Amino acid sequence: MDKKRIIILTEGNSNPQDAKTACGILRYRTDEVVALLDSTVKGRTAGDLFGVGGSIPVISAPGQVEADTLVIGIAPAGGGLPEAWRPILREAIENGLDLVSGLHYFLADDPELGPLARDRGVQIWDVRKPEGPLTVSRNVARNLDCFRVHTVGHDCNVGKMLVAFELKSALGRRGAKVEVVATGQTGILLTGWGVPIDRVPSDFVSGAIEQVVLEHQDAEILLIEGQGSLVHPMYSGVTLGLLHGCAPQAMIMCYEPGRDTIRHCGMEMPPLREVIDHYQRMAAIITPSRVIAIAANTYLMTLEDAVREIESTEEELGLPTTDVMRFGTGKLEEAVLKEREIRSPKPTTGKA
Amino acid sequence: MDKKRIIILTEGNSNPQDAKTACGILRYRTDEVVALLDSTVKGRTAGDLFGVGGSIPVISAPGQVEADTLVIGIAPAGGGLPEAWRPILREAIENGLDLVSGLHYFLADDPELGPLARDRGVQIWDVRKPEGPLTVSRNVARNLDCFRVHTVGHDCNVGKMLVAFELKSALGRRGAKVEVVATGQTGILLTGWGVPIDRVPSDFVSGAIEQVVLEHQDAEILLIEGQGSLVHPMYSGVTLGLLHGCAPQAMIMCYEPGRDTIRHCGMEMPPLREVIDHYQRMAAIITPSRVIAIAANTYLMTLEDAVREIESTEEELGLPTTDVMRFGTGKLEEAVLKEREIRSPKPTTGKA
Repeated sequence: MDKKRIIILTEGNSNPQDAKTACGILRYRTDEVVALLDSTVKGRTAGDLFGVGGSIPVISAPGQVEADTLVIGIAPAGGGLPEAWRPILREAIENGLDLVSGLHYFLADDPELGPLARDRGVQIWDVRKPEGPLTVSRNVARNLDCFRVHTVGHDCNVGKMLVAFELKSALGRRGAKVEVVATGQTGILLTGWGVPIDRVPSDFVSGAIEQVVLEHQDAEILLIEGQGSLVHPMYSGVTLGLLHGCAPQAMIMCYEPGRDTIRHCGMEMPPLREVIDHYQRMAAIITPSRVIAIAANTYLMTLEDAVREIESTEEELGLPTTDVMRFGTGKLEEAVLKEREIRSPKPTTGKA
Repeated sequence: MDKKRIIILTEGNSNPQDAKTACGILRYRTDEVVALLDSTVKGRTAGDLFGVGGSIPVISAPGQVEADTLVIGIAPAGGGLPEAWRPILREAIENGLDLVSGLHYFLADDPELGPLARDRGVQIWDVRKPEGPLTVSRNVARNLDCFRVHTVGHDCNVGKMLVAFELKSALGRRGAKVEVVATGQTGILLTGWGVPIDRVPSDFVSGAIEQVVLEHQDAEILLIEGQGSLVHPMYSGVTLGLLHGCAPQAMIMCYEPGRDTIRHCGMEMPPLREVIDHYQRMAAIITPSRVIAIAANTYLMTLEDAVREIESTEEELGLPTTDVMRFGTGKLEEAVLKEREIRSPKPTTGKA
């Protein structure tokens, strides 16, 4: 993608828990971000609020910095357009900024914003709008040669996307031909391709992810970003359709220690061992697949507590465990490469 | 719904395996059907081709009988519009017939058929077009008083809808206030309401079924029509979203004996005991739920073989088993009423 000058809208929600998209862009497209927009915390910095993005300033109106793109950095449950944002978006368009949105509500279809953008000659990219013809799955991903690793989770918002991106960089440095298959708005914003899986009509979920996997099967390793959780009552259908459509040979389980209830619904979180068991059973319907490693998100813990948690999880479940932000992806890389040897051994004879 | 004079389009697919929608209408709205339309079997009868519908004739063009509605009676995988049907639909509109379609492809949005219908003043009802605002689930169905029975299956097209409708009639005759919650195009055509669940964007599947359940929670018993199968690689996400959204207290497992491979995908069918186990585990994530009875679809078997199959399934799995078309719904009614007593016992004291 071309390099942009981006303002990220995080109005009223400038924290890493609520503004996932902002966080991802600040982390992986840092040098393109010129400001955050949140009138409630004007004058603070990205580094201060998000622990990433350093001195990038917070402004209170689109016209206060020179920019060419406004990205909505928040993904509210349900994906509607908060009416409070409307004047901000209008002002952005009037200032000639392109809009990028991951909302379910498509800005280009808005009766006010759509025509206004056309008048001003600015682009609206609704990242969640599925592209191209939709098809049902043909159940063929399971037979492909590329090694498919799926980052799954015990809940929403535990680091499934981040683990995929960190692992891509690390495995890339080791010489592997590796891609992240983005399945959510933030990931798609970062790679420029993928499938907004939660927006696809449910009949086509497996088919949509299968299609993207097929298009990128020349990679040696595909890291398929997970969504939701099998134990999340609101999103489990998305999670299972995605799991069956990409038919991974291996899974990495992402979790946040201490999360006792499931996000947005208040139900008790089952033990991690049980969640892992659910994923392995459901995956095995299509193709055998193991959880090969665990990515703990210890963001809210002290370093000491994090180390203790990781050690005890590793011992209890017998699986390599780490926090990729604190301790790097080393253990996950090893787990992926080892499982790949087992599941898709390279030919020992033949052409060089 | 008003009584109609219906032609059912089954062009090239006039058999009960491929023309599910036709079959449902022939069975439950028999006296409204004036003809089938299939030029490849012109002159035969519905009874002859479908085992239901008696002497209803097969015609080869919409103008050959007096009618007011043409219903598409086939639901091809993928739900596209076969080009071969276009001239038939055009002729139907020109003859003043309303169109009813369960295709994923919306006829009202077709650049030719939509305007033509408006010109001729005929209605197009695209049954699969979700109505009203979509919301994510609030995970509240599990706390409702109405007794929710979900007809689930080991595969597509094994009788989940039919079992729900047969059971509704039978339980209604016994005095229960009972409704079928239709989740597919045929069921919605029959009841006039419901939710075309496979068309809903995947993020909203649980929320969409929850909403319909909430609207009908004054029923004593809700029979929620299942879709797809947890072990079907193409549709499992739809199945799980639906299961978690309606949070049933009990399930009835529908299956077709002898179906060794999963429909449309050729994978081996797991043993029924394993499929039941998958459903119970996944359901229990939200609320405990048992498979309380089994509905065998023995349509393709001799009577003798059917009896033997049912007896052996009953013995092997320890669950009441029947074929509702051959032997009635008695065993299923008993299982539902018994489980309801256990799960939602009536108060033994209080006002009369």
